[in-house]
Amino acid sequence: MTYDTSLADGFLSRLQPPVEWVDDHIEVIDQTLLPDELRVLSLHTVDDVVDVIQRLAVRGAPTIGHCGALGVVLGMTALADTTADECRARLNAVASRIGSARPTAVNLNWAVTRVREAATRGQTAYEIRELALAEARQVIALDRDACTRIGLAGLEELAGRSRLLTHCNTGRLATAGWGTALGVVYAKQAAGEPVEVYASETRPLLQGARLTAWELLDAGIDVTVIPDGASAVIMDGGRVDAVIVGADRIARNGDTANKIGTFTHAVVARRAGVPFYVAAPMSTFDPMMETGAAMVIEERAADELRRWKDRSTAPAEVPVWNPAFDVTPGDLITGIITDRGVLKPPYDLSIPGALGTAPRREHHG
Amino acid sequence: MTYDTSLADGFLSRLQPPVEWVDDHIEVIDQTLLPDELRVLSLHTVDDVVDVIQRLAVRGAPTIGHCGALGVVLGMTALADTTADECRARLNAVASRIGSARPTAVNLNWAVTRVREAATRGQTAYEIRELALAEARQVIALDRDACTRIGLAGLEELAGRSRLLTHCNTGRLATAGWGTALGVVYAKQAAGEPVEVYASETRPLLQGARLTAWELLDAGIDVTVIPDGASAVIMDGGRVDAVIVGADRIARNGDTANKIGTFTHAVVARRAGVPFYVAAPMSTFDPMMETGAAMVIEERAADELRRWKDRSTAPAEVPVWNPAFDVTPGDLITGIITDRGVLKPPYDLSIPGALGTAPRREHHG
Repeated sequence: MTYDTSLADGFLSRLQPPVEWVDDHIEVIDQTLLPDELRVLSLHTVDDVVDVIQRLAVRGAPTIGHCGALGVVLGMTALADTTADECRARLNAVASRIGSARPTAVNLNWAVTRVREAATRGQTAYEIRELALAEARQVIALDRDACTRIGLAGLEELAGRSRLLTHCNTGRLATAGWGTALGVVYAKQAAGEPVEVYASETRPLLQGARLTAWELLDAGIDVTVIPDGASAVIMDGGRVDAVIVGADRIARNGDTANKIGTFTHAVVARRAGVPFYVAAPMSTFDPMMETGAAMVIEERAADELRRWKDRSTAPAEVPVWNPAFDVTPGDLITGIITDRGVLKPPYDLSIPGALGTAPRREHHG
Repeated sequence: MTYDTSLADGFLSRLQPPVEWVDDHIEVIDQTLLPDELRVLSLHTVDDVVDVIQRLAVRGAPTIGHCGALGVVLGMTALADTTADECRARLNAVASRIGSARPTAVNLNWAVTRVREAATRGQTAYEIRELALAEARQVIALDRDACTRIGLAGLEELAGRSRLLTHCNTGRLATAGWGTALGVVYAKQAAGEPVEVYASETRPLLQGARLTAWELLDAGIDVTVIPDGASAVIMDGGRVDAVIVGADRIARNGDTANKIGTFTHAVVARRAGVPFYVAAPMSTFDPMMETGAAMVIEERAADELRRWKDRSTAPAEVPVWNPAFDVTPGDLITGIITDRGVLKPPYDLSIPGALGTAPRREHHG
């Protein structure tokens, strides 16, 4: 992995994609360093890809998927003397390794599986790699397009609601486009409508305070950072017209895994009478999952809560519970804004309908 | 202000009071440095006192009151050539200055007023100072006693509930005794009952992660730090038997000002069916305040959210909303555990009853 810091000077004005394919390698923004520094990392191996995903240098469910998809291409490089069968075995191994780098976000597995299935049809090592690269690029292009559709669907659904509370980061740093939940914010800006964002800071890694604040400031959008715990006082005080968040995995009944703290916002929104929206591409739905009960929630290192950078935030040895996500029950969600329109309750009908699959008998039996 | 670091070595085993009168000055623990370092500051002037209170080196509603009460004594020192009338004028000025160092906690004003009223009866500068010191010591002794009573009342009220979630710090660092909400935890330990604490970290200043974790580890009590936003997932998961928090000011209808994030926990507890308790001495009630609507909520510096120590947590210029407190409506509070027993709804009857004042007509009219 090599570092290119040449973009740091102009990073507030230039739009660097969070993940892109350049020549024969991947370039990603190291999101752990924002907002202090815009450092672009060059990834040349599958190890590089797994590393940036696991340490959250690359984060945001769609962006993780893009990095993983391009990572498969890296894994299929320099195999000129390899038979097609050997290549396919390697393709499966690489896809499996990258696909399991993080357990909760469904987009990673979805993207990697698409690339694997497209590439496996190749007849030579060269063809397999070319098909993988073409499919990864397609996944990225589809996401950019999906973000645009989500933004426009949200623009209509949230008409007249200008003061939005969001959690974590779901914008240009999390997607190939203008984002999912933040896509709705950018769509409002693009449409010339008023929009004002409360960004909850999102402990422990502060994706709201660091990343959402950074990209909205950069875009000239009115943003105010609040502590996660201010949820109740700000919503009860009538200062929020809607909550809008992203998603890492959505079950067929609307149960939604998203960054830890999302469920708390949803409970508070319900009491305050504030509508609570999830914005996500259709690839976030897990058609195999009836409810959120079976979702595997990644637990992360204790030091994410005990240290901030090199400074302590808690006693070094104190036990910590650090789940990366929580699961918001579908019954707290007003609507799910997707690239195929806004899905509404009852989700066990609307979601299978949008997925093009019939509701499963056991779910209704 | 001078520094004495000689206690740092043994700080995990020795019980240093957060505020105490030593010879002719005040010694306080600088709580901003915990858990990294136990530094004891010597305060010799009213300026020193206001400074440590405003920058939260001394925090916790009762402890702020003790520091303020002793601060009045500092203000009445070295006045030998002053007439009693001049002394009384100075007494009023000092009490007024210290009493307004922070706007939300009622204990500060309550303690300072007690000292002022006791001291003003003195006939000489010497007598005025002696009366002030005696009253400040009395305020501290009463608080130690109140904590014991709160702990014992909570022990009874929370019998069988061993897994407690708390917010901020309400223990040995916040009071002259074993604490308010944490007093109940210590009482359970002292009674040989099982007790296990989830400490929400309490952004932005992390009093839960830093101070509650530190003092419970020191006492050998099972403690786990969680992000504030994990409130819903941990309570919904059935891992919490009760929430118990402190208070900075309680209105006559039970509305309770406490550290930002408390109201959010209370909303979540209600949905999860988890009882939600406030533990506080009777001096926390504001008999003049009918409801929480009129409570002044201190807003603190934006950099508390934008920096952790000398490391950035957000863009340097991003706007921030940083209220120090929120107000939990009385209707979300299962009981208020006080040194005069546990008050239950309807609070507009039980609280005036405990205060020995009749319900006000306008409140029921």
